[in-house]
Amino acid sequence: MRNFVIQKPDTAITPLLQAKIDSLAKPKGSLGLLEQLALQIGTIQQSLTPQLSHPCHILLAADHGIAESGVSPSPKAITWQQALNFVNGGGGINIFTRQHGFQLMVVDVGVDYDFEENTGLIDRKISKGTANFLHQAAMSHTQMEQAINIGISLVDQCHQAGCNIVSLGELGIANTSPSSIWMSYLTGIDLKQCVGAGSGWASEGTLRKYQVLKQAVENYQGDGSAEDIMRYFGGYEMVAAVGAMLRAAELGMIILIDGFIMTNCLLMASQFQENIMDYAIFGHQGEETGHKLLLDHIGVNALLQLHFRLGEGTGAVCAFPLVDSAVRMINEMKTFQGADISPITKC
Amino acid sequence: MRNFVIQKPDTAITPLLQAKIDSLAKPKGSLGLLEQLALQIGTIQQSLTPQLSHPCHILLAADHGIAESGVSPSPKAITWQQALNFVNGGGGINIFTRQHGFQLMVVDVGVDYDFEENTGLIDRKISKGTANFLHQAAMSHTQMEQAINIGISLVDQCHQAGCNIVSLGELGIANTSPSSIWMSYLTGIDLKQCVGAGSGWASEGTLRKYQVLKQAVENYQGDGSAEDIMRYFGGYEMVAAVGAMLRAAELGMIILIDGFIMTNCLLMASQFQENIMDYAIFGHQGEETGHKLLLDHIGVNALLQLHFRLGEGTGAVCAFPLVDSAVRMINEMKTFQGADISPITKC
Repeated sequence: MRNFVIQKPDTAITPLLQAKIDSLAKPKGSLGLLEQLALQIGTIQQSLTPQLSHPCHILLAADHGIAESGVSPSPKAITWQQALNFVNGGGGINIFTRQHGFQLMVVDVGVDYDFEENTGLIDRKISKGTANFLHQAAMSHTQMEQAINIGISLVDQCHQAGCNIVSLGELGIANTSPSSIWMSYLTGIDLKQCVGAGSGWASEGTLRKYQVLKQAVENYQGDGSAEDIMRYFGGYEMVAAVGAMLRAAELGMIILIDGFIMTNCLLMASQFQENIMDYAIFGHQGEETGHKLLLDHIGVNALLQLHFRLGEGTGAVCAFPLVDSAVRMINEMKTFQGADISPITKC
Repeated sequence: MRNFVIQKPDTAITPLLQAKIDSLAKPKGSLGLLEQLALQIGTIQQSLTPQLSHPCHILLAADHGIAESGVSPSPKAITWQQALNFVNGGGGINIFTRQHGFQLMVVDVGVDYDFEENTGLIDRKISKGTANFLHQAAMSHTQMEQAINIGISLVDQCHQAGCNIVSLGELGIANTSPSSIWMSYLTGIDLKQCVGAGSGWASEGTLRKYQVLKQAVENYQGDGSAEDIMRYFGGYEMVAAVGAMLRAAELGMIILIDGFIMTNCLLMASQFQENIMDYAIFGHQGEETGHKLLLDHIGVNALLQLHFRLGEGTGAVCAFPLVDSAVRMINEMKTFQGADISPITKC
């Protein structure tokens, strides 16, 4: 895997940003998380007048061999059916990307289906789904590299179109399963606490899912390195997201993080370049059991808690207006002085 | 005060709305609070295809006699200075109303200042601020009626312009003080728990504020009815908001509720017509100590928790895109059947 060079944003500008935010016509700190966002974005962009441009949403779709082992309540065919629904504009993610002016790219990185030509899907199919990691590695080294490179090239494409804020989403029946395993390896949290209802198991189904995943972990004979865990258990869409996030941070772009699966991809990416965390904004805390634990492990809060458990990047995109509000605040709001307003001096 | 006739929305349509939401191409319930919003809005509008039209934000500004007693860290002049800042487009609320396409009405209902002509302020000044309720009633019966009627007429104006979703905001140095007293009377929660830092007191200042308010409550000799509490302690902007909310619900409009002060206004309004609660969407849980307690008392959660403590209606307006998302979801998202997607049957 190629080396990514991600700069730690220079915090020399941070006090200047803070001073600007504090000079705005409002009690200090009274716009809460928007002020923190403005500080983070100004620091990433090294600018007192940060801007958001051409937001892109990359929706990566792939199938998982582990689906054969009954870990998901949803039939695997939903992956290809929903991929077509997305290119036809009828999914949840379509509503929110249209609403907030995102360019949407729906990418087949490994769906187990032969799509017709000219569907609107971006064809980057590596193979028709990963192998079942209950018995063998989900993908080869070459396939892993392919997935990373697909992520890189998609972000390059966005960047060349003028994008400086990208969000990632996923579609892949069974993909909470590899995510739970990644989480357990990367955080040290017991696998049982990392396994949840996915797209809708009741407690008995969740228990069966856990038992399958526990068996897969017991069968695993690799070296336990982050890269090997990524390759052995990962999905193509997840590894592509890791590559996309690393490249986005390398290019100084803001990364909007969605729910459980994408937060695991970020945590995986941070194993290769920890500076990536400075570029991430956490959009939504999802309902999947492990997500709150995972956010706590990273030490962050998400902007929204709307009880979503849909994936597709819906939580990330729904958080965009708040990010936009933060940038507008620091650019458009008048200062106390500019607005001829008395300073607040008592306390 | 005139009688308001607020219909309880007919819930015969609710199962039909739920069935429509459940038929959309996503696991049931997976869009969390957006699904609840769509259900509420569809029920209010008695429509399977609800619509939001011409959102209006009414920002009511007034001064408070109690400010003379040192209950706020902010100088009283900020009320008139910020009112002018708002009509000049430089405040926090201007950023968010512009961002989300709200018509903004900045209304002087009782600011202690002689504004020049043609500032852009809507002039509905009742008097130059209320009297100090530490010693006497904040307003007379006539002034209270005036404030209620101002709220009614402003909402009528929005409604005539085609608005079916209105949010309310306030500007008035010291107005967390009357709000805390309203809250304590209406909820039965001890006054001390209802008093917070306002625009920025440290703990000592908050304690002094509490002592002043406690004295005011001890001095009060009225009949303890909701209407008398509203009149004796209220601000003009708060009473106007009560009138506006009651009228909005009477007209079947959605009411976006902001933070501590506006939630108290809604609770006050509900004393006159409890059906109003069905029309309210709670935008933001603010930082003012009592707000969480108040929302718990009502039995609701706010959509956002961004640690705002600015007022102006900023929390309500920032929540608007989520309300919009919910409406777009129920109207634009394809069904499983329409998108040719397999139903999820296992569990």
